[in-house]
Order: sequence, then structure tokens, then C-alpha cells
Amino acid sequence: MFEAMSHSIMGRARKSGILDFRTIYLRDFAINDYGQVDDSPYGIEAGMVLRPEPLAKAIDFCEPKKNNATVILLAADGTELTHSLAKELSQKEHLVLVCGHYKGIDERIRQSRVDLSVSVGKYVVSGGELPAMILSDAIVRLIPGVLGAMESAETDSFAQDGLLGCPVWTRPQEFEGMKVPEILLSGHHENIRKWQRDNRN
Amino acid sequence: MFEAMSHSIMGRARKSGILDFRTIYLRDFAINDYGQVDDSPYGIEAGMVLRPEPLAKAIDFCEPKKNNATVILLAADGTELTHSLAKELSQKEHLVLVCGHYKGIDERIRQSRVDLSVSVGKYVVSGGELPAMILSDAIVRLIPGVLGAMESAETDSFAQDGLLGCPVWTRPQEFEGMKVPEILLSGHHENIRKWQRDNRN
Repeated sequence: MFEAMSHSIMGRARKSGILDFRTIYLRDFAINDYGQVDDSPYGIEAGMVLRPEPLAKAIDFCEPKKNNATVILLAADGTELTHSLAKELSQKEHLVLVCGHYKGIDERIRQSRVDLSVSVGKYVVSGGELPAMILSDAIVRLIPGVLGAMESAETDSFAQDGLLGCPVWTRPQEFEGMKVPEILLSGHHENIRKWQRDNRN
Repeated sequence: MFEAMSHSIMGRARKSGILDFRTIYLRDFAINDYGQVDDSPYGIEAGMVLRPEPLAKAIDFCEPKKNNATVILLAADGTELTHSLAKELSQKEHLVLVCGHYKGIDERIRQSRVDLSVSVGKYVVSGGELPAMILSDAIVRLIPGVLGAMESAETDSFAQDGLLGCPVWTRPQEFEGMKVPEILLSGHHENIRKWQRDNRN
């Protein structure tokens, strides 16, 4: 699954030497030769839970203390990811992202090894893999040098006083009878900025 | 990037014949032989915007009207994805997910072809690809038959009256000196349920 990261902004940032990342495969730390990493939960009927031993070994393998790393669990009940949290995390030296799966991970891993739980939204997905990629993308693009000047994150939605961006138009000036708003063609920068502030989504 | 979907719940659901999906590559509908799909925006300085023609052709290629499809744009300023929106979308017959990139897409595509804009969270990512995968995952797991009984989505975080799940424990009973809460080992279902309600995150 994480191959997707190589085709994204993460891959570009790695190529330019700004950062590096690697994927740790939980089954490499399985409790037996069958590759078992999960088990039935205590006290509830449905779902499987990731056992503590493989997770502990996988996290410890990253040597978070030695590497001054923040260990983040992707979890639906974590702190909500916002632009400002992404900004804060973009200043960290090293992150270890822990992806849960099934019903979740054994609580003792949260207690003993997780510094922060992060939720990417108010919905449930099958595992922490996609959320980890979303979190990585949101963080990485805020690291200086990752985005070119043309793509600058400064004018992004949310980046300015938490407000959203405004609608955008590009060529052609007329498409299927629909025209670009006159004001945007005027070249009058002050009026354009005012119009854009008034027309934020 | 979308190869990741084949390794996820989407891939499994496709294998069991419950649904199908395909990826449309925007550059196949480029405006010239150089594969151009974007252009400078009118009125703002930074960033590139997806031009309307390639997007219009790509969306029309999916024949949304004929296929009774809902066309969804992944956009930071869209309707916030929640469990209930995912549930609603899981009942649709056909979805077309439009992934923006760079600064966004030409507004005229929203006006002429997009039924709904969806945001997966209050942050910015480089493109709509990861959000489209997140949205797909959140929706697909709610389609009857996709999850096995053991993984049932019914007991998920958010699924029950919008509240989050409670911490979970699995074997071993003791890990690094930390024990599973006694109550969960009691076998007293009523007490366990009460404890779980009281200990939701």
C-alpha cells in the first residue's frame, strides 16, 4: 500500500534529499511462524485487536528515544488533524506513525509507547495506512523546500487565518458558455484581493 | 498511486464481486500532445489550476447521467465527511470521484458537473488522490457483505450514536507488567457493557 507514497509529494521530497521514510511491516514482528499479529479482544464480541508484542517490537525497532522521535498512532478517537497540528508536526525531527487495523490496538501500547493519537476525520476506515499517508502528505508539504514557489503552501485553504480558499479559474476565458469573472481579468490587484476575500468558500 | 486500493478493502470487495472500480488518468484527456492539463489561474499569483476541458472530458467519459452516478469532488472546502455521509453514499449505485491537484480545479467544472464536494478533514494535502481513497474505504466498508461478521462495522467508533469506541485489550493478559482490566475477564456481560460505555474515548 505504501508504494503510493513514492508517487506523491513524499517521493519527490525523498528524491531531493529533504527527508526520508521507510515502511515497517508488522508481520516481521509476529508472535509465531504463522505471522500472527492479532487476537480476539477481551470483553467484546466482534473484531480483532492488534496484540501488544508485535507492535512493541516494531516501534522499538525504530528506536524512538534515540532518534528523538514522536510516536503517533492513527486512531479515529485521536486529536483531530488540523492545519496547525500539521504545521507543528512538520517541525519535528522524526516521526514514527503507527497504523492500527481491525478493531484497534491493545491499549497497553498506547500507554507505554504512543506520544500522540491523531484522527484525520470523523469517520472510520479499515486501517491506519491511508490516514498515515494523509498525515504524511499534510505534514511534508509544510516543510520548507518541499513545495516549489509556484505551489507555495502559503495561499492554501486553511493556511491563512483558518479560512478556506476562494474559487479559481484558468484558461480558457470561456468554456461551454461560462466566462471567467470580469474582475479577475481586470489586472487591478487590490480589487481582485477584495473580491477573493468576499468570495471565499 | 491508486494501486494502493487493490491491497485494501477495496481490492477484497472487488475480488468478491461486490463492487468494481477503475482509475481514469486525467492526462489521457490533455489539451495537447505535451499532456497539459493545468494552467495559471486568473487573478492570483501562485499555484496551478486544472483546466476545465480535460476534467470535463474525463468526467463525461464516465457517463454519469447514463450510469446514475453522483459526481463527487474531493476538496478542502467541501462538506465534511462524517460517518453518516459515508453511510448515505454507501447506498448510491455509482460514484465518480474527481481528484483535484495543485491549487484546485476550474470553478466551471464544479458548476457544470460536480454534484457534491467532500472534504476529508481540516487540513490541506497535495491532491485529491489520498482523500479519494479514504472516502472509498469509509464508504465501501459500510456496504453489506464487504466486511465479515467478525469485523462488523456496527461496533465501530462513530457508528453508535456518534460516540467513539472504548479502549481494547487482547492477549496476553499481562504485558510488561500491565494487566488487562479485571472487569473484562469477568464474563459478566452487563457489567462489561456498562464499563465500556463509561470508558469510551
